Amino acid sequence: MEFSESEQQELRAVAEEMAEAARGVTLRYFRSSALAVDNKEADGFDPVTVADREAEQAMRAVLAKRRPDDAIYGEEFGKSAGVSGLTWVLDPIDGTRAFISGAPSWGVLIGLDAGQGPVLGVIDQPYIGERFVGGFGKADLARGGAQREISVQACDGLESAILMTTFPEVGSPAEGAAFAAVSAKCKLTRFGLDCYAYALLAMGQIDLVIEAQLNSYDVQGPIGVVQGAGGIVTDWQGNPAHAGGQIIAAGDTRVHAAALEILNS
Amino acid sequence: MEFSESEQQELRAVAEEMAEAARGVTLRYFRSSALAVDNKEADGFDPVTVADREAEQAMRAVLAKRRPDDAIYGEEFGKSAGVSGLTWVLDPIDGTRAFISGAPSWGVLIGLDAGQGPVLGVIDQPYIGERFVGGFGKADLARGGAQREISVQACDGLESAILMTTFPEVGSPAEGAAFAAVSAKCKLTRFGLDCYAYALLAMGQIDLVIEAQLNSYDVQGPIGVVQGAGGIVTDWQGNPAHAGGQIIAAGDTRVHAAALEILNS
Repeated sequence: MEFSESEQQELRAVAEEMAEAARGVTLRYFRSSALAVDNKEADGFDPVTVADREAEQAMRAVLAKRRPDDAIYGEEFGKSAGVSGLTWVLDPIDGTRAFISGAPSWGVLIGLDAGQGPVLGVIDQPYIGERFVGGFGKADLARGGAQREISVQACDGLESAILMTTFPEVGSPAEGAAFAAVSAKCKLTRFGLDCYAYALLAMGQIDLVIEAQLNSYDVQGPIGVVQGAGGIVTDWQGNPAHAGGQIIAAGDTRVHAAALEILNS
Repeated sequence: MEFSESEQQELRAVAEEMAEAARGVTLRYFRSSALAVDNKEADGFDPVTVADREAEQAMRAVLAKRRPDDAIYGEEFGKSAGVSGLTWVLDPIDGTRAFISGAPSWGVLIGLDAGQGPVLGVIDQPYIGERFVGGFGKADLARGGAQREISVQACDGLESAILMTTFPEVGSPAEGAAFAAVSAKCKLTRFGLDCYAYALLAMGQIDLVIEAQLNSYDVQGPIGVVQGAGGIVTDWQGNPAHAGGQIIAAGDTRVHAAALEILNS
């Protein structure tokens, strides 16, 4: 699907309006005693909050008004059909565990899927006040009224690379072992940053993010941002990753190739 | 050692001036291509940067002018003797690995040790713009010109507790296993936040921080903040922790006692 310059501007403006709407909701609940936490999992702890739900509703309200022909796929309220061929893929709070812990590594994720993956992505961190937007061949970071272009950094191999993931377990025992094999080759491994790790990759601060068992709404926003900044995101087999699953994101194709080889050996 | 109201105000003002001086340095280097990273370890990666060194120098310059009789113990430039009985314990950048990765979980730590541990502590996160100060029976968080008192939250036991640490390995294999035994009882465990975890504990967002192999300058600032907010910090045997080593910080004595029992079994 091709987009004219004015269509690109329109889609970006809608994405920003959605991020702004979600920001108002999430900031109202972040670190507030009004935050009620429910558990989605019978056998474990998978929290969802009133902030997740209201933030997705706020984004859906923007789409209902401005893009009624587009489809929606949101974490909390599922799929709504459309007729335009475009789907807005929404994670109102990626990193709900961080959110309920007061740690500002969570983010509002917006991806615009044109059928083959995101053409536009947003990672918004309301408390720090950062908005990362990538798509249509570029990416930028806006904070406090200032905006600057961002891009991934060059990295010649794993021994120079900073790697991030969210949980030490990563996924299944086999997935955890594959991750550990890559981690053992890297200069530095850090944990716990949720979607913010992809933002750090896109701005050239780190070199590699590897995760597993993700959903489409966890990755479409980050893929848009990382690709816009010149990075590469695939699954662990090197195939398109926008449906979720096992994800590897890299700033440099050399690091991507070296990590893929280990993940598959 | 007892401090009059005006002495308390004076000491706090000095601590804030130091934090402000360090903030200027660290913000200049954070996410900057001017940041040079050296490795302190022959067999591993223990980064130190020009930002660490200059930030400590900036804080020492404040002390040279305002508190020339006090001793100093800083991570980068070691010990300087004093005659007042007070020692300023400084970690110019706690979380240098986070700093070089662009993640704003690092902090400038200041502790004022009156001989038996800190009577005043500061955790400053310059990029987010948050300053946590605790001591003399209270604690507060300042951001963007606004200041509010903070306090730990009640928590009736490990099954309701959110636990944080920085590295999944925690310390030695035995220390890692002890941590894992506590973690298995907790509602949620999160990694990667460096000194910011103590700030989250002090403001009642999480319930427990457990770390090992820390230095005095890693803990004196956090101890001041957590104790000021009503929390408890000891070593894994329940003894004073201001010299470093194995650290457990809790917001509620019930959680502290339950975790200590597991750490020592």
